[in-house]
Amino acid sequence: MKKILIIGIGAGNPEYMTIQAVKALNTVDVFFLMDKGASKGKLIDLRVEICERFITEREYRFVEATSPERERGGGDYTAAVVDLNLAKQQTFERLIGEDMADGECGAFLVWGDPALYDSTIRILQAVLAEGRLQFEFDVIPGISSVQALAARHKVPLNRIGRPIEITTGRRLAERLPDTDSVVVMLDAEDSYQHHVDQDLDIYWGAYIGTPDELLIAGKLKDVADQIERVRKQARADNGWIMDTYLMRRREGEDS
Amino acid sequence: MKKILIIGIGAGNPEYMTIQAVKALNTVDVFFLMDKGASKGKLIDLRVEICERFITEREYRFVEATSPERERGGGDYTAAVVDLNLAKQQTFERLIGEDMADGECGAFLVWGDPALYDSTIRILQAVLAEGRLQFEFDVIPGISSVQALAARHKVPLNRIGRPIEITTGRRLAERLPDTDSVVVMLDAEDSYQHHVDQDLDIYWGAYIGTPDELLIAGKLKDVADQIERVRKQARADNGWIMDTYLMRRREGEDS
Repeated sequence: MKKILIIGIGAGNPEYMTIQAVKALNTVDVFFLMDKGASKGKLIDLRVEICERFITEREYRFVEATSPERERGGGDYTAAVVDLNLAKQQTFERLIGEDMADGECGAFLVWGDPALYDSTIRILQAVLAEGRLQFEFDVIPGISSVQALAARHKVPLNRIGRPIEITTGRRLAERLPDTDSVVVMLDAEDSYQHHVDQDLDIYWGAYIGTPDELLIAGKLKDVADQIERVRKQARADNGWIMDTYLMRRREGEDS
Repeated sequence: MKKILIIGIGAGNPEYMTIQAVKALNTVDVFFLMDKGASKGKLIDLRVEICERFITEREYRFVEATSPERERGGGDYTAAVVDLNLAKQQTFERLIGEDMADGECGAFLVWGDPALYDSTIRILQAVLAEGRLQFEFDVIPGISSVQALAARHKVPLNRIGRPIEITTGRRLAERLPDTDSVVVMLDAEDSYQHHVDQDLDIYWGAYIGTPDELLIAGKLKDVADQIERVRKQARADNGWIMDTYLMRRREGEDS
């Protein structure tokens, strides 16, 4: 039997790795690298750094696969991701089928937490459902950028007894959820700017946990333009940006 | 200057500890233990076990404080928590003021992630705002039960591009959020039973990551009664229960 591990490596800081993830790394024969786009170099470097730092006394290899990129700017985001995942599914099936031997352990290292806005679990379940390959798989949670954001700003994600919505920039641009606290991921378009007329606080962070970390917090209407400028500059400097933010209505205290 | 660390120790499995948290433990002089209620013994044991396992070559001490308990069954949950936090604030202020020396490092070990349904950050901010004490503090994120739940069930928390709401049992009993995926914490009352008429899948887990872990997944209407029975029995056996679940509408595939 082959074994596949989906290992959450945390968001940015290699020290977000858990003991469970470190132990898991030390059972792996082959790491599949699937990054793409402008952030590819940096993200592959981080994975290699994590392996070099945490794997002791074990031989392992990397297999790099070309990861198809999503068509950008099209109308239907979900359909584009579904298509992309179908292509990835074929790639995963080939990697597991051809690039590892029976009895070996293969791993995908996922930035942040594998359960949050990542398709690796979904794609492996789809490969299994196809029935052409058999393998065991396990998921190892990691510190997400959402948690890193809250920790670095030293704020709770929720107010007492109140809910949190985790959503995408795309959805935020359409409307502000009426959930008390809103966490936004995958925002390519400065969607917070759609809501500067609201009485909101924002806690924004980019490259959280890394030496390039940027943090800005304040009343949305006061800091929105600053965030947009800093964001644009950082994207120009680094060639890519990965950022997350928490917004909530300013209404007195936690009561 | 005194330094305080709020360290997320993860939900249940000591191996959810991050490298960052392990390093932080090794800088601490005094650990404040604040658990209460039926789960107190077990949760204090876990904290002590984590310290014994991960702290090497350093002297440290525990200071146990009586943690006030929330009045249960009253009408206004938020007001009860606010009162409770005011009492805790006085306790924290006394602990930091009297039970540690200048230049020492004190720590609170928080189950799961300190940013998610935990008041330690909020209370320390309130102590600082009072202005009677000065100290530095830092927050170290931990694997939450939400992430552990998803990892153990091997499911993503969200569907592609869709939002997630994290809410409480109390709120779920009032209404089912129309957010695509709903994660429920702090449910003392089997609130999922209010929604068995809906076409939902549920992924439920208790004591996740521990040797007592219980997992049940399926169509809500098929497994709700089983979850209720298992939950009741587990609570009777252990004297307490800590569980979490993910629900989402069954509507075809991830599209």
